[in-house]
Amino acid sequence: MEAFTVDDIPLIKPGDDIAAIICQRVGLEDGDVLVIASTIIAKAENELFSLDNITPSARAIGIGKKDGKDPRLVQAVLDRCSECFVESPVMLVQSDRAHVCINSGVDDSNVENDLLADLPRDADASARIIGERVEEITGCRVAVVVTDTNGRAFRLGQTGVAIGLYHATPIYYWRGKKDLFGYEMQISEEAVADEVAAAANLLMGEGSGGNPVVVVRGTSLFTGGKTSACQLYRPDNMDIIKKALRIFKES
Amino acid sequence: MEAFTVDDIPLIKPGDDIAAIICQRVGLEDGDVLVIASTIIAKAENELFSLDNITPSARAIGIGKKDGKDPRLVQAVLDRCSECFVESPVMLVQSDRAHVCINSGVDDSNVENDLLADLPRDADASARIIGERVEEITGCRVAVVVTDTNGRAFRLGQTGVAIGLYHATPIYYWRGKKDLFGYEMQISEEAVADEVAAAANLLMGEGSGGNPVVVVRGTSLFTGGKTSACQLYRPDNMDIIKKALRIFKES
Repeated sequence: MEAFTVDDIPLIKPGDDIAAIICQRVGLEDGDVLVIASTIIAKAENELFSLDNITPSARAIGIGKKDGKDPRLVQAVLDRCSECFVESPVMLVQSDRAHVCINSGVDDSNVENDLLADLPRDADASARIIGERVEEITGCRVAVVVTDTNGRAFRLGQTGVAIGLYHATPIYYWRGKKDLFGYEMQISEEAVADEVAAAANLLMGEGSGGNPVVVVRGTSLFTGGKTSACQLYRPDNMDIIKKALRIFKES
Repeated sequence: MEAFTVDDIPLIKPGDDIAAIICQRVGLEDGDVLVIASTIIAKAENELFSLDNITPSARAIGIGKKDGKDPRLVQAVLDRCSECFVESPVMLVQSDRAHVCINSGVDDSNVENDLLADLPRDADASARIIGERVEEITGCRVAVVVTDTNGRAFRLGQTGVAIGLYHATPIYYWRGKKDLFGYEMQISEEAVADEVAAAANLLMGEGSGGNPVVVVRGTSLFTGGKTSACQLYRPDNMDIIKKALRIFKES
């Protein structure tokens, strides 16, 4: 397996054709996985907003005061989630755009003119549009993984995770396979799309040397079938930690 | 960055010299990261046990009955944790050997003669011993990451994570760096050791084609300083999810 950055990606502006920009800068092969940071997709899709147009509610002002945050930013986060599991010191929410994350995925870094970036509205659709366009330009069959960086329970630091998929296997099921001694493995589900996102994030960087596009070659992530990052999200009724956070909030 | 398996690793037995076994099969370079599945380290260190010698408590029998599990296995898990956050349907615990995980890290796959594998007793020490021995044999300066696979909150599937480090940076701190527009980034901590573990896990497999050793080349994970996987574990007093799980358990 190898992973390499697509170099010299320009600053992305609303309306930019990310697929064309990538194809001008790298030679792709069948089965390659294009891993793309959600921030540049949000910029291309013009999912940007300014705090100037936001009037914070009393609740947002309260949270902001407690944690020294701009209450308009707090309001933006509240406006973009269906449920807020933890309000302070960080806002852990069920984002309207699919996954559980901090701050509804609102990103205030690497965006110009005091604008903030949202998550892409439908990252699976973004992945599909870019993937189909890449296939049209190159004739190669590729997978696309749109990434965000998320914190984790019990562990410090963030890792890359998949929030949008096109022709990329989300989870590999080892269930029913034989182990080294021929015993049938009870159950093992490997979140391969998140592992590819994590591998790519090692090369992306977050500071001024940001590389928003990485090619991962030599994995078996590509699949002909339709896939969705939603296949990576734990259903609400199977999520003990969400249940616990709800009870904790009321306590 | 590239990652490749070290092929033809034999079945590891107690007392085996994993470092020598690796060095006979691969040419290493300065800065390489050796990623090693904890199971083979546990085998080499003879951290194996049989259920035959375990007498389950009433609590273990109760949990076992509820979830159709061998009560001796449940007892083994209880014996190996300081705290059990969730008992059913899976046992989510604070393992005595450091991290929060399912089943105290007890592994009943890929171990012969009906034995089960524990986690290594001190995976940082295991990483150090292997790393120093590799350096002695090859003259190369390498990093070592010992891995386990863990589930995640809110997301399905498991990913590789680091549970033992030698000369490997656990977390990269972007705090204070400038973003693309020269703004100082507020805070960003990237769990690079876990990302390398995830990348390697893509190549390890879990079934009969298991590859327990992967070399990751071309990252900046190597560091001359002393590091520990404990630097990846969220301190108890900073862990809202642990607090919530404790309250949920009492509710």
